[in-house]
Amino acid sequence: MKIAIAQLNPTIGDLNGNANTILETAQTASEQGVQLLLTPELSLCGYPPRDLLLNPNFVAKMLQKLQQLARELPQNLTVLVGTVEPNPKAELQGQKPLFNSIALLNQGEIKRIFYKRLLPTYDVFDEHRYFTAGDESNYFILENEGHSLKIGVTICEDLWNDEEFWGRRSYQVNPIEDLARSQVDFIVNLSASPYSVSKQKLREAMLHHCVLRYKIPIIYTNQVGGNDELLFDGNSIAFNRNGALICRAKSFTTDLKIVEFNPEKRDYLPAEIVPLPHSEEAEIWSALVLGVRDYARKCGFSQVILGLSGGIDSALVAAIAAEAMGAKNVLGVLMPSPYSSDHSLIDAEALVNNLGINSQTIAIAAAMTAYDRLLDPLFTGTEFGVAEENIQSRIRGNLLMAIANKFNYLLLSTGNKSEMSVGYCTLYGDMNGGLAAIADVPKMQVFALCRWLNQEQEIIPQNIIIKPPSAELKPEQTDRDSLPPYEILDDILSQLIEKHQSIEEIVKSGGDRATVEKIARLVARAEFKRRQAPPGLKITDRAFGTGWRMPIASRVTD
Amino acid sequence: MKIAIAQLNPTIGDLNGNANTILETAQTASEQGVQLLLTPELSLCGYPPRDLLLNPNFVAKMLQKLQQLARELPQNLTVLVGTVEPNPKAELQGQKPLFNSIALLNQGEIKRIFYKRLLPTYDVFDEHRYFTAGDESNYFILENEGHSLKIGVTICEDLWNDEEFWGRRSYQVNPIEDLARSQVDFIVNLSASPYSVSKQKLREAMLHHCVLRYKIPIIYTNQVGGNDELLFDGNSIAFNRNGALICRAKSFTTDLKIVEFNPEKRDYLPAEIVPLPHSEEAEIWSALVLGVRDYARKCGFSQVILGLSGGIDSALVAAIAAEAMGAKNVLGVLMPSPYSSDHSLIDAEALVNNLGINSQTIAIAAAMTAYDRLLDPLFTGTEFGVAEENIQSRIRGNLLMAIANKFNYLLLSTGNKSEMSVGYCTLYGDMNGGLAAIADVPKMQVFALCRWLNQEQEIIPQNIIIKPPSAELKPEQTDRDSLPPYEILDDILSQLIEKHQSIEEIVKSGGDRATVEKIARLVARAEFKRRQAPPGLKITDRAFGTGWRMPIASRVTD
Repeated sequence: MKIAIAQLNPTIGDLNGNANTILETAQTASEQGVQLLLTPELSLCGYPPRDLLLNPNFVAKMLQKLQQLARELPQNLTVLVGTVEPNPKAELQGQKPLFNSIALLNQGEIKRIFYKRLLPTYDVFDEHRYFTAGDESNYFILENEGHSLKIGVTICEDLWNDEEFWGRRSYQVNPIEDLARSQVDFIVNLSASPYSVSKQKLREAMLHHCVLRYKIPIIYTNQVGGNDELLFDGNSIAFNRNGALICRAKSFTTDLKIVEFNPEKRDYLPAEIVPLPHSEEAEIWSALVLGVRDYARKCGFSQVILGLSGGIDSALVAAIAAEAMGAKNVLGVLMPSPYSSDHSLIDAEALVNNLGINSQTIAIAAAMTAYDRLLDPLFTGTEFGVAEENIQSRIRGNLLMAIANKFNYLLLSTGNKSEMSVGYCTLYGDMNGGLAAIADVPKMQVFALCRWLNQEQEIIPQNIIIKPPSAELKPEQTDRDSLPPYEILDDILSQLIEKHQSIEEIVKSGGDRATVEKIARLVARAEFKRRQAPPGLKITDRAFGTGWRMPIASRVTD
Repeated sequence: MKIAIAQLNPTIGDLNGNANTILETAQTASEQGVQLLLTPELSLCGYPPRDLLLNPNFVAKMLQKLQQLARELPQNLTVLVGTVEPNPKAELQGQKPLFNSIALLNQGEIKRIFYKRLLPTYDVFDEHRYFTAGDESNYFILENEGHSLKIGVTICEDLWNDEEFWGRRSYQVNPIEDLARSQVDFIVNLSASPYSVSKQKLREAMLHHCVLRYKIPIIYTNQVGGNDELLFDGNSIAFNRNGALICRAKSFTTDLKIVEFNPEKRDYLPAEIVPLPHSEEAEIWSALVLGVRDYARKCGFSQVILGLSGGIDSALVAAIAAEAMGAKNVLGVLMPSPYSSDHSLIDAEALVNNLGINSQTIAIAAAMTAYDRLLDPLFTGTEFGVAEENIQSRIRGNLLMAIANKFNYLLLSTGNKSEMSVGYCTLYGDMNGGLAAIADVPKMQVFALCRWLNQEQEIIPQNIIIKPPSAELKPEQTDRDSLPPYEILDDILSQLIEKHQSIEEIVKSGGDRATVEKIARLVARAEFKRRQAPPGLKITDRAFGTGWRMPIASRVTD
């Protein structure tokens, strides 16, 4: 029996577009003799739909669309579509109004609805906000050439509660265990599992463990694409009964893979295995390119703009943008001030040439002078400081937004995670943008990505990589004036933010107390800036944004 | 037996400060012969602590601080303190690691811990992200002059699931029903219940119903104060066994009220009832003043700055700021452009005089010219449009931030909810600010508040109220060029946003189809602006901000 994995890239809320894609994919699969088509979690509305689910009209339209889709799909194909289903007992039993569901469509009808049992409510996930957990084990019978196959159905998180693998439980039940007890022939998992660095290795280790533990083959179908800050890497996979990986779909792009289940052998036959990206840098690069491309496309932009300072952050974002949008659809704007070094302009121009993107140069001195004059009555007698530095950054931000507004560009902001952590960035200045392409990439990783990019030929001019980082907002400034070296900063930030360590713990593991205390203070103080930052593409397990919910007006001492 | 209601205003995360306040309040209460002191939900860390709870060090410090507090409190007093408690079975049973708890402190010890049973996970609430729901009915025995009093303990939401009152259940259990079955003498409820317009009437109706239904007196102790966007109105109350209100604490300020329970009568004796604000406008005014005052104070600012356009929104925010901070701590900046009308300057100056605030005037024409010249090579041949309008707004935003940065002011942004809904505001321009004081106040309500303010004397110059609203970003511009009249706009927005109505429903109830469709489109398109807006003080049941979680890159058709 042929099973197709439809690794789709839905647009959130676009019921018509997403349904059409499912329909087209189903027709392709049907022509190839497929009997069962798998689509990702919530494939009809895209994941995560967020508060669109609180709109009863949106939900009603989704139910209508599902019925229409059932009628239009090839009759001989069984299709599992991700959708929501109203909870009829919600008001009586005090439950949430919806189930996160999988609809089984066949012969023009909605034959069955399965409910997700484990609802993630942590990090970027808010499923308890919308859904009631299903309390039944989900499986169905498919007749195939005289064989009755019992197929277990799970939705994303349902797979993620193996207490043997994790060393702890995250939910009371383990749906896989229930399915094993029901002796299903194989399990399908329909996911929208967001990307983070090396997460695919974790998924494959987990599935491998699960298959060996329960001796049940599994197919995992993942969503792909960028939806605001969340990236979905695809990488759909299948493991056979012996725990061998027998199929892997592509990373970071849509795909349609076919896996054959042999009823006699009661197992999947070997299928295509697409290799994973060759390195962590290659993986992150593809993730960021997809994130920029999809955000622009799904927001209706065909061109992007960014400021080019001659520094490494904007150089990396320019390279990502050129790959995502095509070089001709990228405009880099050089905005030198009297504090800009000569090499900054030269480096930025070399970058423009290497990438083949468009560029404009606007010297901002005249605008600086205008502000200085306007503010002179108030500022006279004060010393040049952060206020004046920020003015420059905000002039640049204003110029970029003006061009973006005038010619309908998407502005990309270029700050990295290290800066965003300690607030070494200007709100309403260099933080401006519709999307923050590398906001979850620590500075040391920015360097690594640029070196990786240059492996075969110089894409990022070498001088951009080797010179000391500087905001160039006052004479002879370098980042080292305000911050510890990035290898130390990034290490402390990782301990503080991702590992939740206390100052004491970091000092104990070798951190300099004064440095650690200063950084912890800076991180807390920068919360007001992060609250107003654009969505930043998430590549780590703890990114700022929807998975980071910190109070601003607070007072926390370590 | 005397029971004290401590209506406290904690700072989020400030364990030392909050514990000290509890201690001082306890000493005052003890001196007045109080036997039982009630504090709000999570009174030790303040509500909502958000992701501070994900930091194990923060939780460890809270547990230590609770023990220290137990030792330091007056020995003869029983104190209920809001705190968190680790869930020892979390990893074994797949539960969340904490309970939202009440600690009973007495004689130097933590005698009991009670767990919250109903965990709100909707709107601004994320309690399933952090907490496991308690599954036991909570009560304790207090000996008082030979009487054993059985006292039921509930935490905030525990009170909000009366299916008779609401016509539906929101949770499976009703903790009040369980306490009634246990025949408690009275119930205490420790809350952090956020403010919205007229919510106190709803609370009092609900408590009245609850008391009559179960014949159990209730004391409800609420937090007060502003924590980022959330406002807590206090208004702690007690109802006796007959359903009569016998005590009400103040609105929008800390308070300590004493209620006496008479063991013979098995009921509360009459106590002080502070009247509610006289009008909806008076109530909203107090809420916004508290919100600005607390945000500034808790962030460490003593002075605020804002732009004064001569329009009604900035006039209202200036008046709020003057009340919140003291007029001498408010700086209004007039930034006329060549498109500003004469009356704008005159009106703004009249406002400055009426309020007695400080002001500065900075004409921005020179900066506009500077940008025009810089952008001329790119913009030549294009028509004046939104890009040029936004430049002006962003020049003003840049000037305000420069002054704020230089002299350590908190910048207040002045946009109203109607503008924020349809995106009639400039990102990085007039949206700039640490706090958006009236971002949840629809324009018609802005007018109503200003008229109310002027009841006794002219505070908002009359011309500001009667002239047609205009952004004054191009000659002869008025809001009516881009938007329907505000009475129509606000009505449609309320139906779309708060009532989740579809375009069809709004048209059916009398809306003009083209207008409704246009507004729905504008609301969806403005999501990217709202994502980068400062926190806005929440006064409605559906505010933008943490309770509004919409995708940006999406495509929703009605």
